[in-house]
Amino acid sequence: MKRKSVAILGATGTVGQRFIQLLDGHPWLDIVAVAASERSAGRPYRDACVWRLPTPLPESIAWMPVQPLNPEKLEGIDLVFSALPADAARDVEPAFAEAGMAVSSNASAYRFAEDVPLLIPEVNADHAALIRLQQRIRDWRGFIVTNPNCTTTGIALALKPLDEAFGLDAVMATSMQAISGAGYPGVSSFDVLDNVLCLIPGEEDKMEREARLLLGKLEHEHVTEASFRLGAQANRVPVMDGHTICLSVKLNTPASPQQARAVLSGFRGALAARGLPSSPALPLAVCSEADRPQPRLDRDAGHGMQVSVGRIRECPIFDLRLVVVVHNTVRGAAGGSILNSELLIHEGYIR
Amino acid sequence: MKRKSVAILGATGTVGQRFIQLLDGHPWLDIVAVAASERSAGRPYRDACVWRLPTPLPESIAWMPVQPLNPEKLEGIDLVFSALPADAARDVEPAFAEAGMAVSSNASAYRFAEDVPLLIPEVNADHAALIRLQQRIRDWRGFIVTNPNCTTTGIALALKPLDEAFGLDAVMATSMQAISGAGYPGVSSFDVLDNVLCLIPGEEDKMEREARLLLGKLEHEHVTEASFRLGAQANRVPVMDGHTICLSVKLNTPASPQQARAVLSGFRGALAARGLPSSPALPLAVCSEADRPQPRLDRDAGHGMQVSVGRIRECPIFDLRLVVVVHNTVRGAAGGSILNSELLIHEGYIR
Amino acid sequence: MKRKSVAILGATGTVGQRFIQLLDGHPWLDIVAVAASERSAGRPYRDACVWRLPTPLPESIAWMPVQPLNPEKLEGIDLVFSALPADAARDVEPAFAEAGMAVSSNASAYRFAEDVPLLIPEVNADHAALIRLQQRIRDWRGFIVTNPNCTTTGIALALKPLDEAFGLDAVMATSMQAISGAGYPGVSSFDVLDNVLCLIPGEEDKMEREARLLLGKLEHEHVTEASFRLGAQANRVPVMDGHTICLSVKLNTPASPQQARAVLSGFRGALAARGLPSSPALPLAVCSEADRPQPRLDRDAGHGMQVSVGRIRECPIFDLRLVVVVHNTVRGAAGGSILNSELLIHEGYIR
Amino acid sequence: MKRKSVAILGATGTVGQRFIQLLDGHPWLDIVAVAASERSAGRPYRDACVWRLPTPLPESIAWMPVQPLNPEKLEGIDLVFSALPADAARDVEPAFAEAGMAVSSNASAYRFAEDVPLLIPEVNADHAALIRLQQRIRDWRGFIVTNPNCTTTGIALALKPLDEAFGLDAVMATSMQAISGAGYPGVSSFDVLDNVLCLIPGEEDKMEREARLLLGKLEHEHVTEASFRLGAQANRVPVMDGHTICLSVKLNTPASPQQARAVLSGFRGALAARGLPSSPALPLAVCSEADRPQPRLDRDAGHGMQVSVGRIRECPIFDLRLVVVVHNTVRGAAGGSILNSELLIHEGYIR
Repeated sequence: MKRKSVAILGATGTVGQRFIQLLDGHPWLDIVAVAASERSAGRPYRDACVWRLPTPLPESIAWMPVQPLNPEKLEGIDLVFSALPADAARDVEPAFAEAGMAVSSNASAYRFAEDVPLLIPEVNADHAALIRLQQRIRDWRGFIVTNPNCTTTGIALALKPLDEAFGLDAVMATSMQAISGAGYPGVSSFDVLDNVLCLIPGEEDKMEREARLLLGKLEHEHVTEASFRLGAQANRVPVMDGHTICLSVKLNTPASPQQARAVLSGFRGALAARGLPSSPALPLAVCSEADRPQPRLDRDAGHGMQVSVGRIRECPIFDLRLVVVVHNTVRGAAGGSILNSELLIHEGYIR
Repeated sequence: MKRKSVAILGATGTVGQRFIQLLDGHPWLDIVAVAASERSAGRPYRDACVWRLPTPLPESIAWMPVQPLNPEKLEGIDLVFSALPADAARDVEPAFAEAGMAVSSNASAYRFAEDVPLLIPEVNADHAALIRLQQRIRDWRGFIVTNPNCTTTGIALALKPLDEAFGLDAVMATSMQAISGAGYPGVSSFDVLDNVLCLIPGEEDKMEREARLLLGKLEHEHVTEASFRLGAQANRVPVMDGHTICLSVKLNTPASPQQARAVLSGFRGALAARGLPSSPALPLAVCSEADRPQPRLDRDAGHGMQVSVGRIRECPIFDLRLVVVVHNTVRGAAGGSILNSELLIHEGYIR
Repeated sequence: MKRKSVAILGATGTVGQRFIQLLDGHPWLDIVAVAASERSAGRPYRDACVWRLPTPLPESIAWMPVQPLNPEKLEGIDLVFSALPADAARDVEPAFAEAGMAVSSNASAYRFAEDVPLLIPEVNADHAALIRLQQRIRDWRGFIVTNPNCTTTGIALALKPLDEAFGLDAVMATSMQAISGAGYPGVSSFDVLDNVLCLIPGEEDKMEREARLLLGKLEHEHVTEASFRLGAQANRVPVMDGHTICLSVKLNTPASPQQARAVLSGFRGALAARGLPSSPALPLAVCSEADRPQPRLDRDAGHGMQVSVGRIRECPIFDLRLVVVVHNTVRGAAGGSILNSELLIHEGYIR
Repeated sequence: MKRKSVAILGATGTVGQRFIQLLDGHPWLDIVAVAASERSAGRPYRDACVWRLPTPLPESIAWMPVQPLNPEKLEGIDLVFSALPADAARDVEPAFAEAGMAVSSNASAYRFAEDVPLLIPEVNADHAALIRLQQRIRDWRGFIVTNPNCTTTGIALALKPLDEAFGLDAVMATSMQAISGAGYPGVSSFDVLDNVLCLIPGEEDKMEREARLLLGKLEHEHVTEASFRLGAQANRVPVMDGHTICLSVKLNTPASPQQARAVLSGFRGALAARGLPSSPALPLAVCSEADRPQPRLDRDAGHGMQVSVGRIRECPIFDLRLVVVVHNTVRGAAGGSILNSELLIHEGYIR
């Protein structure tokens, strides 16, 4: 297979930096351009961004001139990753898709468009077929696919095998989210040190809707949302990386914690998602210790691509309680977009 | 009214220190003795403890010799506050009650004894009547009363007016608890820095049972637990003081967030609890800002004795979602015990 | 004495909020106006600011309309406290001084003007006499006085008695500063969580110069800087409030730790500074415990107005090592300005 | 070269866990045994320890039975790494050396014994020659070598090239140390959250003495301590890993920051230390950004084996100021011991 040429949109922000870090040494993908807002354009990447990851900025990227967010300036690109804010994404991403490029976006702008797949390969790889509808309706040579919100990613991966095995009726989800999810400068230390913030604007709505969409069914080029109800409460806590989510789950067919554990441990995910470069052998790491998962210890499971699940026990009201940890800027953001692009290459959507 | 002579059992620990801090200048109560385990006994209090509160150790206490946990050594005491660990409390508290003293305990040892009141004055002041049963059965001149676990205290105060107005059917509660709740040295910084701990051994069981007992009904000298179900998930977060709890509540009679807010704002608590020295005019501080309560900003509401409630909104599964913050070592521990003792003095149980 | 009418400039920021908190119930001063930038002007204070202090916003201030930073709109004011950023202060403060008001400023804009006193009452109350020079030169009816940078405040108070008793030759100072010193939103949590920041732009220069000025001598309406050298290294650490400073001090006349302790413990400060409403009986709290001072435990000493000093011991290179903790937004900012104004009222500069 | 068989003493603690993590996949060394105190002996390693590192416990170690700290039970071992507490090390390490094994110790017990090398390969590889003296005096077939305290490791590596180029006269060092340096459970979260601890018992003495020993000269089987004076102030801050140290340095031959930077950047370390498996090409990472090094971003430089240096600037009192970050549990503990053992293998002390 020919390696693909990749550009990063919004390359200077925290998610943009994660894309650069995670793509360093990627077997299929080569970053050939980095793009960002006018303010940064024209400067070498290393001067335009303040690199804040603990691994060094790859030398091959450091001296790349930052390009404007303009598809005409980015010739010969097969694939762009979008780490843009939602507002910018709304205008910029279609321009790239129209110009014939595949856009794998972490932005929320098109997550709910009926012809744009919201994808987690292990969960709903088949939804990628919406791409054909999208290209037909919009008359684009390229296309846009999106990955869900970081918190939803963890929830949907944990719920998928339970839904398949027992059917979901209702899910209560209370999240304790890391500050890296808010970007940079993001959350003021004045707000979050020695504190919990009980409001993350817009987050609960995203969690509630995206999860139903991901577990929905594609039929006749239309995704019907899953019918279970999700009630989310989102909180910010003084943690760098790794979102923790406490779930209470009501099933259609009651199951014991042992049965749930077996189903979660055996989860392999959609066939099409297996064996991709960023795809962990097991999408879920089921913890055996009573006090796990914990974000500091478990966020890096499977290089940040595994979602950790533990404390599977009965619920006095619903059927099961469990705790989920997901690396919010790897699996829940840049890593999720990269995995999506690998699926699309493998399935022939990106050539 | 004659001032009461008070001793603190377990005076050197973190809750013991809170008792000393909160009783400094109390209008009804005078600390005349401090007691602790054999290891500390005989030394001046200031040498036996490592004072870790940001207000200074009162001079009147600093030089008191620490007494052993022996009622014979503590003559002329009307009331003892117990900040003992559960194991020690099991043996020590009855000895003081038998010797004729009122024991207002923060320990969990007797919370579920059928003849020992588990009390929050605003919630179930009438349960204090169990004291007469206790004295009769056990043939004690003194008695034991207990206050609930810190987290339960916040939950029960927030639920009480909702139960009165609408009836409770089911409650999901996910807590994010401060490290001071674990005592000293308590939680290792290695465990909790940049982390969330999803297991607090025993905590969920306490929350689930105590809440039903507090909202239960006393009839014929027996408390019948309330019938609603509670599903708790307890977490530790890197916060010094102040537990945050996300609740989802199913009511018997559905109510809108506006109706719930009105009921919570108007809550005055049991008549007998009003006007006591440590009793806030309003037991609940209902936040008007969309992003409150927060532990750092709201734990000290009403000198730490008010429970803050906010983000009252609909739940997609149950009826209501809301967020509660309670100061775990003030209202949820030492302050709760002190308020209980004030109720008992006012009601004539302590003379 | 007639109470003074006070306005706060820059009232909506974190230092502005501290002014409002600390002036609540002040025996000499009444806030009659709050002023801020155009963006806030005209709105009720409670809507214009996000109140972030754990004590409630005083009701008397909540509904005050925010005024523009214009002396013509603020009639009948005796005294303004400036919590403005340095840039804004440069233009705004002179306008108020010219209009006849006393300006007690926490901003750095005029700290090094030769005719503007840089004041800590206990350290150099006599420097206030520069006010007369200032009014003569600038032809103002009012005037500006400033208080030093938060870190310098702690250092200067600890050094003053050592300088008086033994003479200072050289001082190494390494600070570990709280995040509240950077205002709001200030330091990103992404930068400071699980981290130390070794650069606070401009801070070291301020510390080095201000300390020499404060300990300098006023003669013939000119302050000659003290001759000792100060080498500062400033760091930001994940602490909410309270700056910690490690000092190594070389004296002109060598002194033992015991001698230094005696001198620090006995320090009363300039006569003119004693007995003012915000003035602690002892400006320095000398810790007896080997592991103090600590910011969390000692920042609130003397209601945040005492500077805590401890670990006084020999230095293998200089004479003494010691550790200082100062509450950066109380004594080191708003509280320092208020104490300055009290001195000026007492000394007759504000009538 | 034949691979060496290795045992870890004190394998269940935090430093022991680091040894296991860092030796996983080591090209020269194979862990064949893990040993710990009686309490753990006999149990499988995974049950005897609570694994707290974010990388998984290697499967090959998980099921090893924990051995007692007894050389007779550990046959066929070439090399033991000691992660024992100082007290235990005092008795246990000689027993292993006497039994013919090389002991590379992270404990402080023998750091100041005149015949025991205190080693950092890049700094004083030649001190290893003390091993022959040690074996002669003590009549041991094996031997003990030690690595310095974590903080000293960072200081000594940064000072060595400055000493070689310009000569050291005096050094002020103020450290801000991570909590992982205190082991487990180590520092209570109650003590360190939102706080700085200005006392780490014994630490300052270690820093002051060890640094002079490391930079001392070996002549006639005796190390003469270097003559510069070091004044240390050690603090604990709420950081997980990575010690930060602010240095002020007085040189014998004055040098500009540019000259110092050139010398630090060019530092390669002792010839014998180059090219070892754990040896970074450059022992020092000299930061180009004005606000670096920072522990969260720089502790992992060179897989935790490089010491980062930055903010090299003039000092108003001495010649230079600079900031150093060292990974305290990698380069400053287990990684340092491993590098020492590699040197000794390469130099033929371990066969």
